[in-house]
Amino acid sequence: MTNETLQETKVALVVGAGDAIGSAIAKEFATKGYTVCMARRSEAPVVEYARQLQTDGYLAHGFALDARKEEDVEALFQHIEQVIGAIDVVVFNIGANVPMSILDTSAKKFFKIWEMACFAGFLVGREAARVMTQRKRGTILFTGATASLRGGAIFGAFASAKHGLRALAQSMARELGPKNIHVAHVVVDAAVETQWIRDNHPDYSKLSAKEGIVQPADLAKNYVMLHEQPRNAWTFELDVRPWVEKW
Amino acid sequence: MTNETLQETKVALVVGAGDAIGSAIAKEFATKGYTVCMARRSEAPVVEYARQLQTDGYLAHGFALDARKEEDVEALFQHIEQVIGAIDVVVFNIGANVPMSILDTSAKKFFKIWEMACFAGFLVGREAARVMTQRKRGTILFTGATASLRGGAIFGAFASAKHGLRALAQSMARELGPKNIHVAHVVVDAAVETQWIRDNHPDYSKLSAKEGIVQPADLAKNYVMLHEQPRNAWTFELDVRPWVEKW
Amino acid sequence: MTNETLQETKVALVVGAGDAIGSAIAKEFATKGYTVCMARRSEAPVVEYARQLQTDGYLAHGFALDARKEEDVEALFQHIEQVIGAIDVVVFNIGANVPMSILDTSAKKFFKIWEMACFAGFLVGREAARVMTQRKRGTILFTGATASLRGGAIFGAFASAKHGLRALAQSMARELGPKNIHVAHVVVDAAVETQWIRDNHPDYSKLSAKEGIVQPADLAKNYVMLHEQPRNAWTFELDVRPWVEKW
Amino acid sequence: MTNETLQETKVALVVGAGDAIGSAIAKEFATKGYTVCMARRSEAPVVEYARQLQTDGYLAHGFALDARKEEDVEALFQHIEQVIGAIDVVVFNIGANVPMSILDTSAKKFFKIWEMACFAGFLVGREAARVMTQRKRGTILFTGATASLRGGAIFGAFASAKHGLRALAQSMARELGPKNIHVAHVVVDAAVETQWIRDNHPDYSKLSAKEGIVQPADLAKNYVMLHEQPRNAWTFELDVRPWVEKW
Repeated sequence: MTNETLQETKVALVVGAGDAIGSAIAKEFATKGYTVCMARRSEAPVVEYARQLQTDGYLAHGFALDARKEEDVEALFQHIEQVIGAIDVVVFNIGANVPMSILDTSAKKFFKIWEMACFAGFLVGREAARVMTQRKRGTILFTGATASLRGGAIFGAFASAKHGLRALAQSMARELGPKNIHVAHVVVDAAVETQWIRDNHPDYSKLSAKEGIVQPADLAKNYVMLHEQPRNAWTFELDVRPWVEKW
Repeated sequence: MTNETLQETKVALVVGAGDAIGSAIAKEFATKGYTVCMARRSEAPVVEYARQLQTDGYLAHGFALDARKEEDVEALFQHIEQVIGAIDVVVFNIGANVPMSILDTSAKKFFKIWEMACFAGFLVGREAARVMTQRKRGTILFTGATASLRGGAIFGAFASAKHGLRALAQSMARELGPKNIHVAHVVVDAAVETQWIRDNHPDYSKLSAKEGIVQPADLAKNYVMLHEQPRNAWTFELDVRPWVEKW
Repeated sequence: MTNETLQETKVALVVGAGDAIGSAIAKEFATKGYTVCMARRSEAPVVEYARQLQTDGYLAHGFALDARKEEDVEALFQHIEQVIGAIDVVVFNIGANVPMSILDTSAKKFFKIWEMACFAGFLVGREAARVMTQRKRGTILFTGATASLRGGAIFGAFASAKHGLRALAQSMARELGPKNIHVAHVVVDAAVETQWIRDNHPDYSKLSAKEGIVQPADLAKNYVMLHEQPRNAWTFELDVRPWVEKW
Repeated sequence: MTNETLQETKVALVVGAGDAIGSAIAKEFATKGYTVCMARRSEAPVVEYARQLQTDGYLAHGFALDARKEEDVEALFQHIEQVIGAIDVVVFNIGANVPMSILDTSAKKFFKIWEMACFAGFLVGREAARVMTQRKRGTILFTGATASLRGGAIFGAFASAKHGLRALAQSMARELGPKNIHVAHVVVDAAVETQWIRDNHPDYSKLSAKEGIVQPADLAKNYVMLHEQPRNAWTFELDVRPWVEKW
């Protein structure tokens, strides 16, 4: 690829793609002309999804990434910057909600939930900050949850990790804003339409029938909207939930 | 006007228009095909602004309204519904920041600030809720400020009123969401480009030169965005500030 | 009364006394050696309660006060300062929770709830600030509620007023702290043992049996504790709820 | 030691003792008749401080503990329960504020700050929960900071860890409250008098002269106060700062 093409390519990187939300965000950026790079621990689904997007005429790449590994995250950013194009927007979208009593929470589980939901977000956010501060522009978006704002009973490990991610995002927003990097945090305060929710949410059918489940494609529009905000009017945080949701 | 036309007309009502923000919101809805109704205490500027919009090919009306008077608010809603069309979205945008020591705050001033920034918001929000719950759809948007979330020194009266407005909005969102009425609150956490700011903000030139003042037209886009969200993914609150703002 | 005695008298003024909470706070200060002044709209209960405290050997006075009237509040402060002693601590404890749909909330009701729960708090807080800043010491304490922090459905009017009171308290704390006036806000996040709760709370017996209802005497200790904090370690806000409370 | 004595002994365990705050909390509980157990990574200072307390007539023990090690934390709890007495109150007081740009934050530093300020708090809190739920009583107290509530620029790692600790505490409070375990979180929103602050705070002398530095002994009183609250009126959170502090 020529340097010229490389410089004209606008890349959107979604870490935690392949599932419903990440894929929808990737697609939304693809439809806006971005070359989307999707990363996820297991390679197969994300490569397959990239192929689907390519078939539909979009520019898309899938990568296996264990986002908890500092060198792997660094390597992926370098690879994309050198081979695909300048990363304009990064979305961190990994979560792992496992409700359990504090009494039953092993150190290993507490660590793992934090490692995925918070530490990986730090690694991805920092690498994004590093490449973006050099170019003096870019957007870094984090996916939050109800547990980002409230430590509910039996959600200690998850809430701890999600609060940690939100504080990191807020701190980055304050440090990087004046460097022309837009950092934002989307609080998803409800069930999102995923295979897991379809299979496990006790009220899925009832909620689904009345548009009470967040649709990934509609949620994804907020990420593009945040990225497109002009810098005189940036949003750090917005919440998203269906009309019927109790909160 | 025939009943048919009346039913096809989509009205956006902005209370607290004529100034920079309200006018920009009105214009943004006008460009989306809404018939905009703008209300403000003094008639001249709002009627003049409606004429400008009309000249540009938009559907616009200006009304004098003292939004602190229950009957006047009720009468305006009735008039618009009967003569202009169904009110689809209402924006409450009145504020009145007057910094002063608690020691110097007269009962009259405390009351007036609350009456304009909170009580009028209640009257407008309630009337909106009444007409919208009958049709089972609609959007009610409130403009917030830094003082909606923080009671800073010498901002007691204003913060009290703005916190009160936000609590009302939150309560309405929780009650009316399941009735298909979308209530949201936009926290404007910075100076907005207005004549007053141009004349009085000590750092106006410096900030303006680097896009550090919120532009009404860009802020206004968030109001339309909120109104257009599908109901599976509604936002209650988002904050807006320029990239260089300390917060 | 001689000037000397006047200067040695430490007065604790509780506005919104006579009911369970205000009376318990007054008693707690009385046991600490304060001359307690209790004010309430209807004179009989507060004068009767002052008499009870006197019978028990405490110094106590009861006053009729409509705390929504600026002159009446000013007059009471002047009277106490001139005739009884220097007001060292003021507690504002008036509330008025009336749940109702936004659709059914008349302007009159919205105003009245605000007038009692917020405006009266402003009047009392400001007068306290005025006498205390002259002496460069004092404590001003406000009673908050769940609705001070959350705008629940059908609690719009009450939440609006309580948020307004909390913002005022926060603003006053920031302005008056450096003037050696301690302002604090106690968030009571549960039912308190009152006659009304005994008569109306659906789970009263069940909760009461397991110590699930806040006891006024225990709640009151927090007010004295706040007043006694040395100024190197002041608290602005604390929450109080029973062990079994869902929150 | 006989079983009887063991059962009568009330133990207060402070993890993160030896420095100013932890030591002051330990002493405050010692003066209330508790047998205080103090744990800290380096043994010497905590054993020395225990000896000082013993000299003053108090019951005190010092332990070396790396609170980031699950087995070590478990072992210490078992040892104390079996040899010293029933642990009635546990205070987690470890922090580690290291301001740095997100760009300069290595994975190792981010992890270490979290490991000390959040993960160790989880290990200590969980073990406390385990022994206390068996006895159906106890108090678990966490020390928070400004960064528990706000992610300031260049405080990303610390704010992330402290938000994580607070969310954990909140979650534990909600789960364990109904099991008669009182969990609370003290937000210390200012500099506390420590050797480090004396040596490094730019305004130390100026602040100190006007009682603008939090005194550990005064801060410590809040921990005992929280532990002594009757269960009908428990506080989850309170903030502490000097009168002159900007916030």
